[in-house]
Amino acid sequence: MILCDIGNTMVDWEDNGTYSKVCVNDFDPAEHTETVYYVCVNAKQSAVLRTLPNWIDVTKFIDWDKYYPTMGIDRIMVCEAVSNGVIVDAGSAITVDVMRDGVYQGGFISLGLRCAQEAYGRLSPALAGSFNFEVDLTIMAKNTPDAITVGFLAPLIHEIKRLGKPVYVTGGDSKVFSSLLEEAVVDDLLVFKGMKKLIGKGQLC
Amino acid sequence: MILCDIGNTMVDWEDNGTYSKVCVNDFDPAEHTETVYYVCVNAKQSAVLRTLPNWIDVTKFIDWDKYYPTMGIDRIMVCEAVSNGVIVDAGSAITVDVMRDGVYQGGFISLGLRCAQEAYGRLSPALAGSFNFEVDLTIMAKNTPDAITVGFLAPLIHEIKRLGKPVYVTGGDSKVFSSLLEEAVVDDLLVFKGMKKLIGKGQLC
Repeated sequence: MILCDIGNTMVDWEDNGTYSKVCVNDFDPAEHTETVYYVCVNAKQSAVLRTLPNWIDVTKFIDWDKYYPTMGIDRIMVCEAVSNGVIVDAGSAITVDVMRDGVYQGGFISLGLRCAQEAYGRLSPALAGSFNFEVDLTIMAKNTPDAITVGFLAPLIHEIKRLGKPVYVTGGDSKVFSSLLEEAVVDDLLVFKGMKKLIGKGQLC
Repeated sequence: MILCDIGNTMVDWEDNGTYSKVCVNDFDPAEHTETVYYVCVNAKQSAVLRTLPNWIDVTKFIDWDKYYPTMGIDRIMVCEAVSNGVIVDAGSAITVDVMRDGVYQGGFISLGLRCAQEAYGRLSPALAGSFNFEVDLTIMAKNTPDAITVGFLAPLIHEIKRLGKPVYVTGGDSKVFSSLLEEAVVDDLLVFKGMKKLIGKGQLC
């Protein structure tokens, strides 16, 4: 089975267990004649894909009663991959969602690490700079880099822990978050896993 | 006693219990011939004030061993005002600091409400919009406005509560925060109270 996750900058592929990535500008779906299951958040690519009968939109298998209409497609996929747990997708935004017995419990959206750091810098040159990921989030800060790191990360990490276990972490900043969330499972394939589960359900219908 | 808190946009006055505010561009310290105790974060005004002998910089009374060199002056003032408690100054940034028996325990800096909302909007047009302050922060969100509100506010409010009591709230967004922090004491005069305590200590030296 061939799976494809099309974002606004990158396209992720799984071709029967082999993974690859290509820049969306170098990607021409018409070059592929085999059956491809896809999710796509890129409006321009979506318009092209709808004209290609071998490209199957996995969103048509989503049971929308479980989610909400404006929820991001990748976010639904990572939820579909997990029956029980807290799912943290740490990308440009950080989405945190809870699944219990296959039922979506809700979630929240935090700013991504880069976005938050840029926002501090925009507030004041004195607050510009990178987070200090070595800082101990359990103690109060007594210098500026630690104060912004603790200010952004401690509330978020404690809130994620409050939501229960197990915790799954995916996305571009998954390694940073897994270092802060002991016992968290890093799984960068959650979108593909969710797609496969949805396709399986769709084929049973 | 006349107190003056000079920011980058506004100047706050206390003249023997009477409070007023003036735009920093309309403010000329040389017009005042009486003794004025001040704190100032405005570099241009600071340079002028140093030449005026009747203007007394309250920062000279700070015991810097208690704090750290890059800590904001207003933040030190609100800490000086409180011997025991958690102090939330909700302005363009949100500073959260802990004092126990007059000793500074440390703190953290979060993004201010407006800054955070703008950062969400910059991430994606789908995340632009105001926070929903009516949302119940104890439950997971199932729509986008609630998801960004819960994503920003629930971790922060829960972290502040975790730090203990009493909680004092000051700053431009103090009312929003006091509605989310039951039992919090709103006190918009904390900077002036801290200044008075420091001046009292300075005069005893």
